[in-house]
Amino acid sequence: MEKLVSLCKRKGFIFQSSSIYGGVNGCWDFGPLGVELKRNLKEHWWYRFVLSRDDMVGLDASILMHPRVWEASGHIEQFHDILVDCKECKKRFREDHLEQDSCPECGGELSEPRAFNSMLKTKMGVSEETGVETYLRPETCQSIFVDFKDVCTSTRVKIPFGIAQMGKSFRNEVNPRNFIFRSREFEQMEIEFFCREEEEELWFDRWKDDIWQWYLDIGIREEKLRWFEHPKETLAHYSKRTIDVEYEYPFGWGELQGLANRGAYDLTQHSQFSGKDLSYFDADLKERYFPSVIEPSAGADRTVLAVLCDAYAEETVKEEQRVIMRFHPQLAPIKAAILPLVKKDGLAEIAGDLEKKWRSFFTTYYDQAGAIGRRYRRMDEIGTPFCICVDYETKENDTVTVRERDSMEQVRMPVSEVPAYILKQCSIRPVCC
Amino acid sequence: MEKLVSLCKRKGFIFQSSSIYGGVNGCWDFGPLGVELKRNLKEHWWYRFVLSRDDMVGLDASILMHPRVWEASGHIEQFHDILVDCKECKKRFREDHLEQDSCPECGGELSEPRAFNSMLKTKMGVSEETGVETYLRPETCQSIFVDFKDVCTSTRVKIPFGIAQMGKSFRNEVNPRNFIFRSREFEQMEIEFFCREEEEELWFDRWKDDIWQWYLDIGIREEKLRWFEHPKETLAHYSKRTIDVEYEYPFGWGELQGLANRGAYDLTQHSQFSGKDLSYFDADLKERYFPSVIEPSAGADRTVLAVLCDAYAEETVKEEQRVIMRFHPQLAPIKAAILPLVKKDGLAEIAGDLEKKWRSFFTTYYDQAGAIGRRYRRMDEIGTPFCICVDYETKENDTVTVRERDSMEQVRMPVSEVPAYILKQCSIRPVCC
Repeated sequence: MEKLVSLCKRKGFIFQSSSIYGGVNGCWDFGPLGVELKRNLKEHWWYRFVLSRDDMVGLDASILMHPRVWEASGHIEQFHDILVDCKECKKRFREDHLEQDSCPECGGELSEPRAFNSMLKTKMGVSEETGVETYLRPETCQSIFVDFKDVCTSTRVKIPFGIAQMGKSFRNEVNPRNFIFRSREFEQMEIEFFCREEEEELWFDRWKDDIWQWYLDIGIREEKLRWFEHPKETLAHYSKRTIDVEYEYPFGWGELQGLANRGAYDLTQHSQFSGKDLSYFDADLKERYFPSVIEPSAGADRTVLAVLCDAYAEETVKEEQRVIMRFHPQLAPIKAAILPLVKKDGLAEIAGDLEKKWRSFFTTYYDQAGAIGRRYRRMDEIGTPFCICVDYETKENDTVTVRERDSMEQVRMPVSEVPAYILKQCSIRPVCC
Repeated sequence: MEKLVSLCKRKGFIFQSSSIYGGVNGCWDFGPLGVELKRNLKEHWWYRFVLSRDDMVGLDASILMHPRVWEASGHIEQFHDILVDCKECKKRFREDHLEQDSCPECGGELSEPRAFNSMLKTKMGVSEETGVETYLRPETCQSIFVDFKDVCTSTRVKIPFGIAQMGKSFRNEVNPRNFIFRSREFEQMEIEFFCREEEEELWFDRWKDDIWQWYLDIGIREEKLRWFEHPKETLAHYSKRTIDVEYEYPFGWGELQGLANRGAYDLTQHSQFSGKDLSYFDADLKERYFPSVIEPSAGADRTVLAVLCDAYAEETVKEEQRVIMRFHPQLAPIKAAILPLVKKDGLAEIAGDLEKKWRSFFTTYYDQAGAIGRRYRRMDEIGTPFCICVDYETKENDTVTVRERDSMEQVRMPVSEVPAYILKQCSIRPVCC
């Protein structure tokens, strides 16, 4: 894990937020490579679960919402950790993490436990009367319920259908840890899928298959994935059933995505608290009801971390060590590096021109510094799936070699065939022509 | 403007946040069509200013940062409005908006003016000692300066180069207004371009051309755009020169994007406040200095609003009124509707199959309800550039008609040619093959 964190900083995937000021606990910045990796991942998810389906629509709602939303959702009452303070060293701990009744740091006496709400508060508006205290949303899903009626009346969606949203959420974690796994500011990719109550188990099972398959399709090794079924006793207040997809991180198994059957809890609650009827009229059944909700809720940063962990490998090749990030080509930040074998004899110019031309089709990188072997290694380390080498033969017959990152095999092909060859493997949408 | 706001709600472009709870002033949600429009706009910007250039890299930093950032940037001291309260009706006003020295609402006596900081505050961390009061960032650009060193050491960028970022920012506007133009939660698309001091005017002029051209390329009419030069006396504390691109909204001219010469202000400030040297070593000059910064800073929501305003039109066609959104095809939320001329005789099945197949290449919509003319009008109203009609001839010779939204002209073409025809006009990246 340490190696990965260091590589992420060194290569520009992920930096600590405000590091020149000593950092902010639980906040992270995506650097030049990280931002492209995350963009590709989010685009892959959006394409798979929204654009390529005919039963899904998207939403992008605000982070700041009306404070009553969090009363209706149960967050004001239920969304807290039980904390205790050490009376001597003043440190604070989550009670459920303690194994003894004295301070684990100094052995001091502990205070009475008290509830601490995990939402971050803020205040909007400038005057005392109209200023309103509210929260940074702790989850994106509530806006999907709150906007349910607006979505239904503005589109022609018919149950069964889902609403998807990607966006930032915030939780005042007592102890942010494990790199970007548990942070205070994080991004979610959530779906609320609305169906008839009698079909909720059917849709639960379908979504179970769909989300599992997605992890395989972004290149996660199946042996690193498992299901965890939440026992009935520990289910959240809104849930009839919850199962998690877990990934085996270097620090242990951790949740990647939850799949919950929320029943009709949220729409019913918001109807009561808002006084607006959020029930759905089913034109086929000629019946009005509160639909059941199946919720696949994924963490974008946790998925990025799983992708990074799963891709990281060290290999010995011809007695030399190489570090390699085996990203799925569709997720790789840079799709192809264009490298002149040597700088001289016009090869650099040819390679430069090709890079300039191909940059409009896919994300490229140009590098002419150092021996070709070292340049290949640099690209392996940031997970670039293809290295295109311009050599003396290029001048003769307009062909280049294309080296594949994992196998290190090189094939020679006409320059004109390169873009389609790269795009077929790297494009998230299929290439049509 | 009212018509546009109503269309946006009715068709699922933009909803008021938390509307079932009476709404939140200054926060907006992008509905199923709005989210795709905004995604396309942001992708267009990112492709133009990051991916297609060789002198730009991206960043995606956290919203919550170390509070010292806002001391260094000058926001704690300078980022405020001067407010006065009416002692009678208790309403609050911006002093610079008042034309008289009594309350404009009730004529009451006004309080002494006082400064009100426009940043939204929050508190992170759970214990009294380690909990830290900070702010929701009021602009994305500061994280670019704070991460400047990390970006330089993790990539091979060399001056002149820029760092781009898209993301949410927050300002506690006294009076949010004009739909999504002035809101409390909004999204920015910012670039900080680092160059030598002697080249700052050169780069200022280049960026001036580049950003102007971008508005034309996303389809904004040039006569609706103008430059506004900020007079020296009103320049922000960090700026040597600022000019704005303004758009003529229905409510008047408003800023779309600022272009500022920030000089070396920010890197110098953050070096002083953090104690970390953020100067740049110029290997060509063999010299260390604080680079100058040219900042093109655009509002994503304001651009969406300009795109919506500019696209909206009403026309009379054959004595019938049509409302049409003339979105540039690259921005349109839905690229093509696939419509069977009639439901019967197998036409619906053929159209349905084509829609299913083409959905993987571009965003499609299937509609079989009502007369074909009405279905065309519905697509005009949400700005779909192409309507593909499956008719009886399709069954005979595998051709369809493709109707273009603005001209309403129809051309007949083989089914096999449709995807490339649509993609060539709607794809943000050029189609390579």
